[in-house]
Amino acid sequence: MEKGRLLYEGKAKQLFATEDENILFVSYKDSATAFNGEKKEEIDGKGILNNKITTILFDQLKKHGIESHFVERISENEQLVRKVEIIPLEVVVRNVAAGSIAKRLGIEEGIPLKHSIVEFYYKDDELGDPLLTNAHLGLLALATPEEIETIETKALEVNKVLQPLFKEIGVTLIDFKLEFGKTPDGKILLADEISPDTCRLWDDETNKKLDKDVFRRNLGSLTEVYETILSRLGGLSK
Amino acid sequence: MEKGRLLYEGKAKQLFATEDENILFVSYKDSATAFNGEKKEEIDGKGILNNKITTILFDQLKKHGIESHFVERISENEQLVRKVEIIPLEVVVRNVAAGSIAKRLGIEEGIPLKHSIVEFYYKDDELGDPLLTNAHLGLLALATPEEIETIETKALEVNKVLQPLFKEIGVTLIDFKLEFGKTPDGKILLADEISPDTCRLWDDETNKKLDKDVFRRNLGSLTEVYETILSRLGGLSK
Ligand SMILES: Nc1ncnc2c1ncn2[C@@H]1O[C@H](COP(=O)(O)OP(=O)(O)OP(=O)(O)O)[C@@H](O)[C@H]1O
Ligand SMILES: Nc1ncnc2c1ncn2[C@@H]1O[C@H](COP(=O)(O)OP(=O)(O)OP(=O)(O)O)[C@@H](O)[C@H]1O
Ligand SMILES: [Mg+2]
Ligand SMILES: [Mg+2]
Repeated sequence: MEKGRLLYEGKAKQLFATEDENILFVSYKDSATAFNGEKKEEIDGKGILNNKITTILFDQLKKHGIESHFVERISENEQLVRKVEIIPLEVVVRNVAAGSIAKRLGIEEGIPLKHSIVEFYYKDDELGDPLLTNAHLGLLALATPEEIETIETKALEVNKVLQPLFKEIGVTLIDFKLEFGKTPDGKILLADEISPDTCRLWDDETNKKLDKDVFRRNLGSLTEVYETILSRLGGLSK
Repeated sequence: MEKGRLLYEGKAKQLFATEDENILFVSYKDSATAFNGEKKEEIDGKGILNNKITTILFDQLKKHGIESHFVERISENEQLVRKVEIIPLEVVVRNVAAGSIAKRLGIEEGIPLKHSIVEFYYKDDELGDPLLTNAHLGLLALATPEEIETIETKALEVNKVLQPLFKEIGVTLIDFKLEFGKTPDGKILLADEISPDTCRLWDDETNKKLDKDVFRRNLGSLTEVYETILSRLGGLSK
């Protein structure tokens, strides 16, 4: 599959066309950004790490019957995916209070939630990705109520696979962000990436953060902790 | 009914005990506050105006079959109400985009919403009254899911009465905030106040704001516009 023209450059990835109009070429960048792009740094090796981690996680989801846009990894920092029309929602699943929910609702960071929850944020950098209620989802009509329900169900299914998968490697999956898209035939498909950029991962022994919060909060070397995740997932050998 | 000891002093009202433990004495204050108490002013006559407007609106709701805590107005700035255990939610009904929803979702102020919506905010000054999704409502458990549904239904019923009532006096009911409480026997009851402090009211002819936004945004005399509302509601004669 050949790399065609650049279709989109985001903060973490570039999307290229391929000769197959249904397939995109994704190149993972070395940029790290936080706070809606306010904090920004180039970090050698980050793209390779996220490309590999995402590959492992989408592969594992597939083994557990959860389809995604992922087709195959084709180089250290590149992969092929199915092209979808991204639904502009950041779909957040939370198991333990951290980050914005802790601050907004006054729940102490680290307190497990009574049950896992799904939140929807409007993917709009200019508006600062505002939290949406069901009523807002209805008004904005970014997806039908049935599609929203499908997305919520799928997000919780992903959680049901990823939670034990991380638990096995001594890590608690605190929360994570998913994106979904629509295929040309109207099916909802899990897309984008699942990596320490998009998850909160806390070490069960040391309680240390093994995710992008290391960068957000200047807690140490990003590549070191991303490598820890990749290696525990068994991915360094590949 | 005699005024007993002060039970609670809020930003806009004082609550006093009475000899009947199920009845409270509410005194409407002349304070105007905005932005979570950051802006504050004493405005002569505001308490009387809100006491009278709230009285008319709760009376009208009752005529349309909607019960509230309101018992009777007993002086210029005082009324008797049924004591309830307030559910710490600010229940906002919106018909037209204005204020936070316009800013957060990037909808132009004044655009009518496709349909009326209800939003729930956690009534917690320290947290800045954060917006809550259904998932958050489930976690916080401030009320059961059935109670939340009852509240949402009642809020929309109130809207169905107030919208035409204001339309008749040349005013569009843009949005408003309600509070609900629980009676000792567990019934959900509309409580607090409904006044230009808690509604956005726009004049249909001039498009001028006839509500607390006049104070929030320094648009003129608060008492003048509150008097306009009271007078159009037929309340100056009483
Ligand atoms: N299968 C797919 N088909 C089409 N677009 C996709 C697919 N998977 C992910 N995307 C989109 O590609 C972009 C990935 O780039 P990146 O993650 O760098 O973006 P971002 O900076 O995080 O977000 P933004 O979308 O705001 O630019 C995102 O906009 C994402 O929604
Ligand atoms: N029937 C009722 N029984 C008990 N409490 C009530 C009743 N109606 C309203 N309240 C409460 O009385 C208080 C009214 O005071 P006021 O409106 O001045 O408060 P506020 O400053 O707006 O809000 P806060 O509750 O944060 O002080 C509110 O806390 C309100 O929830
Ligand atoms: Mg991204
Ligand atoms: Mg109040």
